[in-house]
Amino acid sequence: MAQTATTGKAAGSTRLDRRKARTRQALIDAAVGLIAEGRGERASIQEITDAADIGFGSFYNHFESKDELFRTASEEVLERWGRMIDRACADLGDPAEVFATSFRISGRLGWTHPDLARFITGAGLDLLDIPRGLAPRALRDIKLGQEAGRFTIPNAEVALSTVAGALLGLLRVHQQQPEQIDETAVDQLAEAILRMFGIPAREAKRVAARELPDIAAW
Amino acid sequence: MAQTATTGKAAGSTRLDRRKARTRQALIDAAVGLIAEGRGERASIQEITDAADIGFGSFYNHFESKDELFRTASEEVLERWGRMIDRACADLGDPAEVFATSFRISGRLGWTHPDLARFITGAGLDLLDIPRGLAPRALRDIKLGQEAGRFTIPNAEVALSTVAGALLGLLRVHQQQPEQIDETAVDQLAEAILRMFGIPAREAKRVAARELPDIAAW
Repeated sequence: MAQTATTGKAAGSTRLDRRKARTRQALIDAAVGLIAEGRGERASIQEITDAADIGFGSFYNHFESKDELFRTASEEVLERWGRMIDRACADLGDPAEVFATSFRISGRLGWTHPDLARFITGAGLDLLDIPRGLAPRALRDIKLGQEAGRFTIPNAEVALSTVAGALLGLLRVHQQQPEQIDETAVDQLAEAILRMFGIPAREAKRVAARELPDIAAW
Repeated sequence: MAQTATTGKAAGSTRLDRRKARTRQALIDAAVGLIAEGRGERASIQEITDAADIGFGSFYNHFESKDELFRTASEEVLERWGRMIDRACADLGDPAEVFATSFRISGRLGWTHPDLARFITGAGLDLLDIPRGLAPRALRDIKLGQEAGRFTIPNAEVALSTVAGALLGLLRVHQQQPEQIDETAVDQLAEAILRMFGIPAREAKRVAARELPDIAAW
């Protein structure tokens, strides 16, 4: 790359690449903003290109469809969300508490970020295949808990899929029958999952009832 | 039906109804066979009508799309499977044992019926929306366990989704990294889910280790 950049043509195409990347990122940022405002699904391409301050016509130079843009943007939102949870849990030493805290924050997405919750329920277990965001972090935390001898459940991948099923079930019920779920239900589910992972029942109750760390605005 | 069948015209339309039903069933049976061969998703309508021994053109008299046929066929396969598990559990009195037994049999699908396992992993959590087969039975068993005071987990729908995530995770890992999973892992997961549902750890271990009933050929 450094070599070819010395020729005029290659330097030009590098500038073009950079401009293309900036436009693409502007579209993603606009979509992220619309998701954060809860308008992710209803926005038109015109609204998106307006928000990104680019011409309507260039949308399709970067994304094949609105869906593709929103998938990319949602992954980015989930990654930011994951980093935010990482920061919130940075001071916790016990892997069981890190896991429970992350789950309790994620389970509250239905209230705090309904759009993101809808993206998650829309993606379903395909979430597990997204290399960024919540799933890789949950897998990391499950493995840390296993290594520390806190979690006795044998297979981390199966445990992750179980947790994803739990989170998706929670968000689905919240969407479909919101009166059936409150934040206590999120904490009870975190407690139940800790029991499943091998934490003794009484301790699971205690860990899942700890005060949640302050979640910084993101 | 018996009355109208005595008139010539009605008898004729009844014959036609029966022929229509037979053709429809032949299409479903063909699809069930293709699912069993692991070609459910890739088969063309031509292949399906060839396998059913009917004309290509009559496909659309019975189904709007290939997807609709395969949904119907897969539901039928899962419903047969569900009835088989019901029979295998008919003599069990404890809802916790019924649940654990059903889960342990279903978790073994990766070994006993790899094609059905592939349909299940392909469907993902959409399984929960199918009104026949495994999901409604699991929900029934969870509710019976709640009513009997065996399961303390509060929301049956969320519990069901968690169990689905667990089963899907198990089947996925079995498909992708078969060396990581054996039948002991299935039983350990059943035990872990019982703990999650509120069964004390020691008892969960005992219930999930009981001898499995003989599974009749279906």
